[in-house]
Parts: sequence; structure tokens; C-alpha cells
Amino acid sequence: MSFEHMHIISMKEFTRDMIDHVLEVAEEMEPIARSKSSSDLLKGKVLGVLFFEPSTRTRMSFEAAMMRLGGEVLSLGSVDASSVAKGETLADTIRVVAGYSNAIVLRHPMEGAARLASEFSAVPILNAGDGAGHHPTQTFLDLYTIKRESHLEGLKVALAGDLKYGRTVHSLCYALSLYGAQITLVSPPELSMPSEIIEDLKKKNIKVIEESSIEDAIQDVEVLYMTRIQKERFPDPAEYQKVANRLQITPEVLKNAKKNLRIMHPLPRTNEITPQVDETPHASYFDQSFYGVPIRMALLCLVMGVFE
Amino acid sequence: MSFEHMHIISMKEFTRDMIDHVLEVAEEMEPIARSKSSSDLLKGKVLGVLFFEPSTRTRMSFEAAMMRLGGEVLSLGSVDASSVAKGETLADTIRVVAGYSNAIVLRHPMEGAARLASEFSAVPILNAGDGAGHHPTQTFLDLYTIKRESHLEGLKVALAGDLKYGRTVHSLCYALSLYGAQITLVSPPELSMPSEIIEDLKKKNIKVIEESSIEDAIQDVEVLYMTRIQKERFPDPAEYQKVANRLQITPEVLKNAKKNLRIMHPLPRTNEITPQVDETPHASYFDQSFYGVPIRMALLCLVMGVFE
Amino acid sequence: MSFEHMHIISMKEFTRDMIDHVLEVAEEMEPIARSKSSSDLLKGKVLGVLFFEPSTRTRMSFEAAMMRLGGEVLSLGSVDASSVAKGETLADTIRVVAGYSNAIVLRHPMEGAARLASEFSAVPILNAGDGAGHHPTQTFLDLYTIKRESHLEGLKVALAGDLKYGRTVHSLCYALSLYGAQITLVSPPELSMPSEIIEDLKKKNIKVIEESSIEDAIQDVEVLYMTRIQKERFPDPAEYQKVANRLQITPEVLKNAKKNLRIMHPLPRTNEITPQVDETPHASYFDQSFYGVPIRMALLCLVMGVFE
Repeated sequence: MSFEHMHIISMKEFTRDMIDHVLEVAEEMEPIARSKSSSDLLKGKVLGVLFFEPSTRTRMSFEAAMMRLGGEVLSLGSVDASSVAKGETLADTIRVVAGYSNAIVLRHPMEGAARLASEFSAVPILNAGDGAGHHPTQTFLDLYTIKRESHLEGLKVALAGDLKYGRTVHSLCYALSLYGAQITLVSPPELSMPSEIIEDLKKKNIKVIEESSIEDAIQDVEVLYMTRIQKERFPDPAEYQKVANRLQITPEVLKNAKKNLRIMHPLPRTNEITPQVDETPHASYFDQSFYGVPIRMALLCLVMGVFE
Repeated sequence: MSFEHMHIISMKEFTRDMIDHVLEVAEEMEPIARSKSSSDLLKGKVLGVLFFEPSTRTRMSFEAAMMRLGGEVLSLGSVDASSVAKGETLADTIRVVAGYSNAIVLRHPMEGAARLASEFSAVPILNAGDGAGHHPTQTFLDLYTIKRESHLEGLKVALAGDLKYGRTVHSLCYALSLYGAQITLVSPPELSMPSEIIEDLKKKNIKVIEESSIEDAIQDVEVLYMTRIQKERFPDPAEYQKVANRLQITPEVLKNAKKNLRIMHPLPRTNEITPQVDETPHASYFDQSFYGVPIRMALLCLVMGVFE
Repeated sequence: MSFEHMHIISMKEFTRDMIDHVLEVAEEMEPIARSKSSSDLLKGKVLGVLFFEPSTRTRMSFEAAMMRLGGEVLSLGSVDASSVAKGETLADTIRVVAGYSNAIVLRHPMEGAARLASEFSAVPILNAGDGAGHHPTQTFLDLYTIKRESHLEGLKVALAGDLKYGRTVHSLCYALSLYGAQITLVSPPELSMPSEIIEDLKKKNIKVIEESSIEDAIQDVEVLYMTRIQKERFPDPAEYQKVANRLQITPEVLKNAKKNLRIMHPLPRTNEITPQVDETPHASYFDQSFYGVPIRMALLCLVMGVFE
């Protein structure tokens, strides 16, 4: 299975076989990501890093992935300080940077930016988030975390928080549906999962359950995936506070959780999960953050053709 | 011919033999720049990158050049976040960074900054633009592009756009004069080539032609070098618009061009060249941008003494 | 003596034997720092660089140290562009970055930040300054400079400038007291050395002399350590100017200096030392700046366990 020259734009382009292959390559990469062995697989290769929006985790884990494999990172830097500020089009910037690099990782505030970029790029584009669009490498790392910390096949999972605007959970739902899953949804009514997505899941024989409290939802699940609820979604700060309190994870809330429950969160968190939870065996969100490195190593190696 | 320890401040310090040598070394570097072979020529070497003004292309191609050769890039970062903001002199900053690196690439808004820096630096300074002063590595990459995409000896070239303030075209004229050339100038009267430069060229037996339209100018030329006309040069926006429209390159304008015409532009472009031109065989500006990598590889290797 | 996994938070944790060991390792590193030999000691290792405050010298010399040893540098970038701007706690940021790197160098405006970070980090924290707190790698480089340019045992040293707020000189005093020293203090009354520190030194049998003029102070000393006096410390600009003038080092002031006097300064300087002094054999501040590289190489190798 060759991914060479492939653009990574959206999860929709990946079959289950392809996803499985990426996860397997990531597993081979993990010792290198943990600095337990070293590698020159990407020596002489340059990754162009174009972030038109701030990011810590995604950018840094892509860069760490490249570095751990002996590759180099070439950054556009802040957008203010670049020729983008002189009014250059995205197409031109991409064509120029493609001339300097072996692949480009792109984050852009506009939906469709990564697809557009792929049309002008001589090297693979890795979409690191295009606004309300896609963020496939996040989904890959979520799947990899689930595989490593729990199991993918027939997973019982609860998704909680902002299920309306959170592109992360939409993409994850789609991916989990390829493995069979029982999905429990917990969100305030204003931020509930779009009904098209629920319909889609049901068509694929995915059991979808809606719960109004985390306590009820987690009694039977193996993974609880929390997302951040943005204050800006609520016109009334008091309303936000009420919702935020109701969906907050504390050791108390976890009293009836299964022993093997794993809690995930794309981070950064604010108050969705209290620091006391970090000490429990349920907390998998920092591992999840680390898993961004091996999964991005896998994707980089695959699209640059140094690994089949 | 050794360039070891040489500062690269202005084209005026280069004889034709020296330029030829740099271009030949760049040709040897090109496969590495294209990632067709890898290299450790600059392994263990550090390039200090001091950009006191924004730049995408120049900075990124210097960094890519260093990385492709196994070297490392040490960046001052944004000026706001550095000790320059605490009032340090350029001389002090240079002396400090020279202690950390094997060469320094410097962009600075003030004319003469690179020369000044060279007086305080224990390592070679590569001038990446000093305001209205010089930008020799741009001229080198322009020459390299012409050599690779057309030919240098006795070139018929048209220069169009802002010929008054564009340091790029002044420096290019000087360099082309070393190879014999027929130079056609197209610019609005407000932005015409300074007469001293025209006189200089004529003294060197360079044929200089002034044309008022691009259509007329390109019928006989092999290279058309476009530059950006800055809105700020015109007190009246309507006047700017008129000029910009008249000098815009479209497929229409190119109807009577020679088959082997190559269009160059230092980028970023705004509206000087429409996107439709990108698809024609005349468009060489993205290749030109790429050629910044091998040419900067050559200069870095030469001044760091790893190549003669 | 193993420093593996050790956090470098403050000088107080170092005995004289430990300091001596670090200085010896730095001496072994110096040829690599001078690019006279190359090294792969830190190949495959990643240094996380988290600067929540601007810095040129400290950051760049840490990065150069890593690069000269074949290691890689992973930067958080500017704080505005990171998830810290989304309200992430330092503890969370540290845990995430620890997952991507083999050690973290941290500068933070708040006293105690480095200690806090060390409690959440799976990898060694190197404190690169925590506000009014500590900056141990600066003290190490000061000691290394003194050892290389003068001698440590029983040093006669004058400290001048802001001795009240300058954490650098407090930490240096403590360290020098381990080697025996005669310390002369020169400062305006508003910025004199805190009496607790003077008492401490005297308890350790360190001779402490207070002088009001630099001229008097330097007649007998081997090292003069200047610090920057910040304008902001003085409510009245005229008062600042008077103090600044009185403590300024010029060739004139140095007329009665010992031949082997070495002048140090953590840089950046403003007017404390005039440029004319740079040409005298007394000027050691640019060497001092360079010595930041071998000393940080030593510390990085020691805490990452590639050197004992």
C-alpha cells in the first residue's frame, strides 16, 4: 500500500485498510518517538510548516516527528512577518514553499484551504486544520490513542461537550463507524451533534445513544472523549457557566466509571477536567498528546515515500 | 578560487570569473536542492539568521539551503522579542551571534548595515538586503535562473515596472553588463531607470532601449524581468491603477512574444502577472524562486570554506 | 558523578565539586563550540525551548549548544501564537512539551516557575531565568568565563552597577564564595547589595569591601563585573543619568587597572561600557557571551545522560 505523494486532506479519503496501515506504521515509530531508538529515515528531507493560525500541539508534534526521524523543519514563521502580509495569494505561497520542501503541513483559518493548496503543490500537503473543515491528523492520533490505550473494534465511547461545532468529534465519529462502535452523546441542547451526522451513523448500523449527564453516560463506556466548550458560543455568561459546571469531569463524577475507562481530550483544556483527575488511571489526555508524534511520523514517512 | 571568510555585501565586489564560479557551484548543488541526492557538506555548521525586516522567500531559501546540506539554522527570531528591543547596537548583536555561528545572513532596513556588520563579525556576513542598498544573493539567483532557463552571454532582456527604486534591477543590469546584453526598459515616467545607471551601461557598450509598452518590448527579447510597482509610490490611486493596468502581463500581452521568452519576477507578485500566465511555458518565476536554494547553497559552501 | 534527569533550577543545589565537574565538561566541549571539531553526542535528542519572555543570548546559545552537538531544537514560539494564549496552565504546557522532547529549557516571568515546571515534567527542566528568581546557567557561564579568562580560586573581583535587583550578581556571589574570594561592591546607594547577602558572605569568610567609585575599586581586582542599571529604577531621569555617568567604564577609567583585569557584562549593555573599551585587552564580555555555548553544551549533555 503506497501513500507516496498523497495529500492528507480529510479522513473521508481513507478506507479502514488504509487507516489500519497508518496505525501500524505509527506503532513501529513509537520507540523512536520515545527516544528509545534513533532514526535517519527522513534525513535530508525538509518539512515546510505553514501555520496561518496559532497552534502549539499540532505544530510542535509535527516538528518533533520530523526531528526524531532526522528531518528538518522549515517554518514560514508568523504571518505578519511574511510576504503573505504583502498580499500574496495562498496558491503562490504554496508553490514557492513547495520548491523548498519535501512536504508541507498547513493550518489555515479558511475551510477548503488545504484542498486548494493541494492543487498548486508539487509536494504532499498535510492538512493540520482548515477552519471549520477537516483536521485529519488529529483524528488519526485519536484513533491511535484508542488503539493503544483501549481497543478500536466495537468500542463503547462517550463524546461530551461541544458536539455541534467540534470538527474533531465529527471526524472521529466517522472513523469509529468503520470499526463498529456504540456512541453515547452528551452535550447541552445548544451544542448537540448535528442530526445529519447521527443519521449517517445510524445508516452504518452504529448505535447512537443520547444522554444528558456524564455520570449516566460513563457507566458503560470504555472511552470518554471530552471537548472544550467555548464561552463565545453562549450569549449569556451565566448560561455558559451552568453548562460548563454540569459537564465538568471530577474524581467525583468518575465514581461509577468502569475501571478501564480512558478519558481523552484534544487539549488545551480549561475547566472541563479538573487537575485532580490527572492523577487517576483514567487520564489518557497527556498520552494522547504524545501519540501525536508517532502518528505524524507515520504520515510523514508514508507521504514522503520512505515507508510503504 | 577561494571565497573562504569572504563577506557577500554587494555585486560590485564580484568579477565575471567569480560570478561564473558561483553559478557553476550552484549547478553542482542543484540535485541536492531538488532532494535527488543528500549531503552533509555543512554538517556541524550553524547559520545565524538575523532578519530585522520580514521576508519569506529569501529567509526560507537560505534556511532550506543550509538544511539540505546538513547544516543548522539559528534564528534571532522577531526583533520585538530580542535584546535589540532593549536598545542593543547592531555591532554588539553581530559580535554575539558571530560567537554562536559559522556565518550570518542579515537583512536590515538601513542601507550600509551589512557593510557595518562585516566590520564587527568574526564570521562571513551574507547581505540579504539592506534597505535601499544591496541584495546580492537575489542578483545571483536571477543570473542563475537566466543561465538555466535561457542563456547569459549576449542576452536580450526587457526590464519592466519600477526601474527607479527597484534595487534588484539595478544590480541585475550591472551584472548582465559583464556578459554583454541588450537591455530594453519599460516603465512609467515616474519610475524610470536612473540616468546614471543608463550612462554606466552605455559606457560598457551595452545597448539600452527604452520602450513605453510591454507588447513592443517583448517582441525581440528572451527574458522579461517584471518588478512590483508599489502603490505607495503614487500620490493618486487612480494614477497607480492606470500604470498598473498598462504594465500587467496577461496571455493576451504575450501573443507576439518569442517562443522561448522566459518571464521572471522576484515575487511576491500582486497583479503584475495574471494567474493565467502561470500555465504558459513562458512562466519562469516559480523556478526562479526555487533556484534561490542552489545558489544560496553555493554561496554558503564557498564562504564557509567547504568548497573551493 | 551523574547529573542524568537532574533539573537545573538554582545554583543552591550545586556543591563546589558539582560545579567543578560542569566546568570541566564545558572545557571538553569548547572545541566543538568553536566549530573546530564536530559532534553527534545529542543526535536524535530534542530540546524543548519555552521562552515566555524575550531573550536573545540565553535562547540562542542554548540552541547553538544543542545544534553543535547534533541535537534538535523544538520551540514553543511566541506566547501570543500558542495555546498559552488560550489559557492553558504552565503545568499542562510542560506535560505536553515533555512528551515531545528530551529536556526543556524554560524562561518565565514568574519566580518559582521553573521549580513548578519540574514537578510536572517527565524530562529535565533547565531554568533559563524565572523573573526575580534564579538563572543558574548564567552563573555557570560567568564562572566558566572567570576560570578561562582569569582564575576562580581566591579571586579578587569587583561587582558594579545594580547590585540590589541584579539576580545575576547575587547568584555569582554565592558561587564565588565556594572558591574563596575578595568581593568589592560598587553601586549607587539606592541599588546596593542587600545586607542579608553581605552577611551571608561574611559568614563564609569572604572579604567584602564597599567602594563608591569604579576607579578606586579596580586598582586591585582581577575581574570587574558590570551590570546594567535600568532607567526604570529611578523616579527622576536626571538622577539616573548622574548615576549612569558615574559608573560608566571608559578607557580613561581603566587607566589604573591591573594589566590582567578582565571586564565582564551579561549583555546587552547600553552605556555602561563605551565601545572604545572593546578594543582594550580588558574586554571579556564578548568572550563571556560565547562561553554560554560550551557551558550549556555541558549542562545539556549531563542532564540528558550522554556524559557523566
